[in-house]
Amino acid sequence: MRTPYQPSRQDIKLPSVLHALSDPLRLKIVKGLSETTEQYCSPYLHLNVAKSTLSHHFKVLREAGVIKVRIEGTQHFYSLRTEDLEALFPGLLPSVLRADEAHME
Amino acid sequence: MRTPYQPSRQDIKLPSVLHALSDPLRLKIVKGLSETTEQYCSPYLHLNVAKSTLSHHFKVLREAGVIKVRIEGTQHFYSLRTEDLEALFPGLLPSVLRADEAHME
Repeated sequence: MRTPYQPSRQDIKLPSVLHALSDPLRLKIVKGLSETTEQYCSPYLHLNVAKSTLSHHFKVLREAGVIKVRIEGTQHFYSLRTEDLEALFPGLLPSVLRADEAHME
Repeated sequence: MRTPYQPSRQDIKLPSVLHALSDPLRLKIVKGLSETTEQYCSPYLHLNVAKSTLSHHFKVLREAGVIKVRIEGTQHFYSLRTEDLEALFPGLLPSVLRADEAHME
């Protein structure tokens, strides 16, 4: 199976990262991923959105360099690119993850 | 003159702030404002964009709560809402401002 596009560290751009994070649902996905090391996308099905919508949001996050995917058979395992983001934009991801739920929607 | 809309602190939302910051030109404006306490918009005319484009970007930043405007006669003075943003999203703005120019476009 073809590995979906994910930018190398030097190709990760701040505007794309900020855009990827500028959606309430994507912020929820990122928060969810921050609580684990790697996650199969099924836990997000409780978010009550269509699978295609979810796929779109994972794609935006992946193409911006916020998350990466590892494919095993037919399963996609997602994780945050914490190390890359911290190297490029120190403190950005932690500050976003600390944000109060009240200010996320 | 009517004061343009700017959200009160409790109405500032993280997705809107991140969206406002997710554009290279708006990031340049924010960086410029971070180097001063208050700025008239003319210094940005060297950015080589149409005045209407610039007005649009200032509006996006203002409506998201990233900047505020003070009107004196016909002049608009802009400043970053550093205190509000730091109270709501500690570390977010500093991490964005620290970002390397190489990763901002």
